[in-house]
Amino acid sequence: MFWALMVEYDGTGLVGWQRQDNGLSVQEVMETAAARLNDGQIPDIVTAGRTDAGVHAAGQVVRIDMPSHYTPRQIRDGLNYHMKPHKISVLQAVPAPEGWNPRFSAIHRVYRYIILNRAARPTIDRGQVWHVAKPLNEIAMQEAARCLIGQHDFSSFRASSCQAKSPIRTIDKLNVTRNGDRITLDVEGRSFLHHMVRNFAGSLKLVGEGRWPTSQIATILAARNRAAAGPTAEPQGLTLMRVDYPLNLFT
Amino acid sequence: MFWALMVEYDGTGLVGWQRQDNGLSVQEVMETAAARLNDGQIPDIVTAGRTDAGVHAAGQVVRIDMPSHYTPRQIRDGLNYHMKPHKISVLQAVPAPEGWNPRFSAIHRVYRYIILNRAARPTIDRGQVWHVAKPLNEIAMQEAARCLIGQHDFSSFRASSCQAKSPIRTIDKLNVTRNGDRITLDVEGRSFLHHMVRNFAGSLKLVGEGRWPTSQIATILAARNRAAAGPTAEPQGLTLMRVDYPLNLFT
Repeated sequence: MFWALMVEYDGTGLVGWQRQDNGLSVQEVMETAAARLNDGQIPDIVTAGRTDAGVHAAGQVVRIDMPSHYTPRQIRDGLNYHMKPHKISVLQAVPAPEGWNPRFSAIHRVYRYIILNRAARPTIDRGQVWHVAKPLNEIAMQEAARCLIGQHDFSSFRASSCQAKSPIRTIDKLNVTRNGDRITLDVEGRSFLHHMVRNFAGSLKLVGEGRWPTSQIATILAARNRAAAGPTAEPQGLTLMRVDYPLNLFT
Repeated sequence: MFWALMVEYDGTGLVGWQRQDNGLSVQEVMETAAARLNDGQIPDIVTAGRTDAGVHAAGQVVRIDMPSHYTPRQIRDGLNYHMKPHKISVLQAVPAPEGWNPRFSAIHRVYRYIILNRAARPTIDRGQVWHVAKPLNEIAMQEAARCLIGQHDFSSFRASSCQAKSPIRTIDKLNVTRNGDRITLDVEGRSFLHHMVRNFAGSLKLVGEGRWPTSQIATILAARNRAAAGPTAEPQGLTLMRVDYPLNLFT
């Protein structure tokens, strides 16, 4: 029986969602825990989005094939028990609708990227922010970001490793706001290319520093060439906040 | 020459502000770093409030005696350089006003206590919240908290180790608010007794669980007896947010 899980994790020290040989992944921790509830067999697990090493999730969505005799609460609490002491928690478990796929059924994804913009290194939020010491002009960043909203060919903001067939994506929202020394980029769209949000952040930071004019982002977008854009922003500032489906799966 | 510093730290793994034999303190890290800028001599350091082990600070205030030939920026960056890799950062350094004392000149202190109220263990904010799995009624907690506002004898909410001469304190604000599964207690006053905010949180949690009626907090307050109150809430949910003085020291 297929279950839909909402999962939160701190990506610090993990190699990302996907199983890899060079370190511990969210997938491996979840699969190992799930096997304990599944007669020792690792069940099939599919995710809404494969987050990179160091990237966090507040509302990752996962589909897992587990016995039907469990209650939603037993699935949630059982997985959480066996995932100790890792910083990965199942927040909710619900029976998955017929034919539902966490990745392909998703209609909306919400990401947040946080820059800590001050001279002093982060303490309380270390590992959760990109530390940029040079003062950034978030008004210029917001103005520059406007051209990214809508449907475009995002080849310039796409990792070379990206496996998507098309570079065309639609950005529904890209808000840059400052609260004290924290600058937050809220980015929403149906789906994203690999490194897309981090590449937005990396280029917008150069605008914020004044090294690029606000018009540069539109120039980069039009170039359809990864080499035209700025470097990829550090992973730990990024959090996958939420994934939406046509039906509300979770309460 | 006396300098005023605004300091941020993550209290995780530290024994608190004050030097102790059983582990590393904020004071020891700061003093060791300061000695590097002071011919190897540990300078005199005084703080606005001695936070406990595991308690955080977003705006701790410290007075430090350092050579006058430094610029404010050199003090800040020099201390931060030598405090690596600890999660302690000087956010600002300014020359201290004549006769100013960080503890006795303070006229207002702002604390925040965060409860993560859900079944699943914390991940991203582990070490920054008190995890309470049982659902809490924050409306009842706010109602119960109202009697704590104003000037009272807070003996019931005072640690036995508290060294203050008088148990009389004035609470200017105590707001309980919920945002999703986070319940935040914002507490403000001129000064606080030892464990006072954590003792508020510990008793209000029992009201939130429904184990105590909202009227119980007033009963406890009137008892003037620590044994009447609930247990002390865990330290890691607490952050010293800000300390105010008659003059604005920091920008």
